[in-house]
Amino acid sequence: MKLTIERAALLKSLTHVQSVVERRNTIPILSNVLIEAEGAALSLTATDMDLTVVDKLAAEVGQPGATTAPAHTLYDIVRKLPEGAQVSIETAGDDSRLTLQAGRSVFTLATLPREDFPATSGDDLPQGFTLQASELKTLIDRTRFAISTEETRYYLNGIYLHAAASNELSVLRAVATDGHRLARVEMPLPDAAKDMPGVIVPRKTVGELRRLVEGMDDPVEIALSDTKIRFAFASTVLTSKLIDGTFPDYERVIPAGNDKVLEVDCKSFAEAVDRVSTISTEKSRAVKMAVDKGALTLSANSPENGTAVEELEIDYDGSGIEIGFNSRYLLDIAQQIEGDAAQFTMADAASPTIVREVADPSALYVLMPMRV
Amino acid sequence: MKLTIERAALLKSLTHVQSVVERRNTIPILSNVLIEAEGAALSLTATDMDLTVVDKLAAEVGQPGATTAPAHTLYDIVRKLPEGAQVSIETAGDDSRLTLQAGRSVFTLATLPREDFPATSGDDLPQGFTLQASELKTLIDRTRFAISTEETRYYLNGIYLHAAASNELSVLRAVATDGHRLARVEMPLPDAAKDMPGVIVPRKTVGELRRLVEGMDDPVEIALSDTKIRFAFASTVLTSKLIDGTFPDYERVIPAGNDKVLEVDCKSFAEAVDRVSTISTEKSRAVKMAVDKGALTLSANSPENGTAVEELEIDYDGSGIEIGFNSRYLLDIAQQIEGDAAQFTMADAASPTIVREVADPSALYVLMPMRV
Repeated sequence: MKLTIERAALLKSLTHVQSVVERRNTIPILSNVLIEAEGAALSLTATDMDLTVVDKLAAEVGQPGATTAPAHTLYDIVRKLPEGAQVSIETAGDDSRLTLQAGRSVFTLATLPREDFPATSGDDLPQGFTLQASELKTLIDRTRFAISTEETRYYLNGIYLHAAASNELSVLRAVATDGHRLARVEMPLPDAAKDMPGVIVPRKTVGELRRLVEGMDDPVEIALSDTKIRFAFASTVLTSKLIDGTFPDYERVIPAGNDKVLEVDCKSFAEAVDRVSTISTEKSRAVKMAVDKGALTLSANSPENGTAVEELEIDYDGSGIEIGFNSRYLLDIAQQIEGDAAQFTMADAASPTIVREVADPSALYVLMPMRV
Repeated sequence: MKLTIERAALLKSLTHVQSVVERRNTIPILSNVLIEAEGAALSLTATDMDLTVVDKLAAEVGQPGATTAPAHTLYDIVRKLPEGAQVSIETAGDDSRLTLQAGRSVFTLATLPREDFPATSGDDLPQGFTLQASELKTLIDRTRFAISTEETRYYLNGIYLHAAASNELSVLRAVATDGHRLARVEMPLPDAAKDMPGVIVPRKTVGELRRLVEGMDDPVEIALSDTKIRFAFASTVLTSKLIDGTFPDYERVIPAGNDKVLEVDCKSFAEAVDRVSTISTEKSRAVKMAVDKGALTLSANSPENGTAVEELEIDYDGSGIEIGFNSRYLLDIAQQIEGDAAQFTMADAASPTIVREVADPSALYVLMPMRV
């Protein structure tokens, strides 16, 4: 194998794939990136067995071939090369070493045979549809913060993506929950997605996908089966196993009869919550909202720290209610609301509350209250 | 106590003092900042018993008084207040609570009596001289990276500041070493400092001092005795205990007979070291320098990673030498060299090497080689 490529292009491609590779691996080949040169293209592949990212880029290939080399080391080397450098990569006769040269720097890296690199099966992915990168970004950003990190509830460790009906319209929905809060966002269902199965996309895949989506504005081809999902960008393809489990019937958690409707200016609300929560104990992070005609009073207190109270003017005509929330959950939601106004729909101090953006009803958040 | 102050001024002042306060304290009062209002001034004091910072600022004092309140909580609150806010601070009758109000936010914090706050003794500090903030910055920056973190060699856990003679000139010297490298910087001795004792300024004090110096360009009044040092800025005073120990006779470590002189372009040298060290094992970080007529070859190798070689053109006429260094130590020094050219003066592979900036001989670094 022998090829030449510009440093910036190689670095971008390595950036796309290298973060899939875990820092510590018991199986040595999983620390490596698969490098394949053929035609006028270089292809880089990284995998952790569950998740595989392949990046293709144009390169001047002197002699086709393939090998694998340590992903993080390769990334660090290329990152440190001077801007504009031409990088030549070459394997010796027996392919046991890879030589990377740029300017007056020469690196020799131990390789492992390409045959040992786990193949990503070309499984049949019968369902397929297309989203804009910006749409995918919205689906992820509005939900991922609510993904559970509790390993025992593995079926909550991802985003549940599925087709549903909302007000008699067909929608594509992303849902995540950790049992304390739930985030649901929807968009019109692409026609081609009407028979898609409901799937749970794992947290790590969501993270890698989000990194890839950043700064892209191409359409993304999505293909899936019951067990696998593939996201294909212009030059990058991410394939991931899905979580093998049943996402709970989240609709039952979304209350229908809440009647106390409160609107707040999202920015000043978030700032006030942030200030008041300074006093909350680090463990509970509880903030109390006392809603009454014309005023919302946020407060927190802790035996060690003291008390905090802040008042916000609001438009509210209902009966008074006092309800407590984890301030971090409130701030997570506030961060996703792009418009000015957020709407709280509450029942009582012990029942789940719904939060929405007034100007954009496509996202809905459910928050379990805390006793305060 | 009752006072009003602009948020930005209070925040700046709290920033100066709060980092002295440790996150965890077994003695509760050490988590607090002493707040004193008198005349038209507010004074904030933080201490860890070894190091005390006092900041004075103008405030509208309605009623003089003093109390103490949790430093980090107070800092977090003021940081989160909106820009331009007027902050009013007040203690109730029995002084057991402090109330901070700004706009529609009200915070009540538990206080501890000012009498419990450790007094910084007004010890006699017979020696005194003045440095420019920029001079103090140079003394710190050129040496602090070499301060030892080994607790057992406590007398190396700081910067040794003392008067010395250099080429028959009187100089003020700052020296730090961890046994593997030594950094020495000097400047003309202020007349008033000619009788100063040699003192070891502890690492934490150096760090706090460096933070205070940043962005200041006033002269700094320094006063000291055998056991204490005080740095007085326009509105901030830092007083610190000194390390009670004897700094080793570092002059004996600086070789006099090294005869192999190598000059490198500092920036390209540092970049090459950084690249080549990618291959070094994380533990040793070793990089080998092979110097020969006209060329410096940097190399590293590790059983796991492979090898790296980079060549730099140099002006060198001496006999060949191969010598190894910890790459991190080389990079630490390179970062302090502001000019283009760095000069290595070597003897052999087992003896200490001297590094200096060609254009500025005021700083000198000694590096112990590693076996490679």
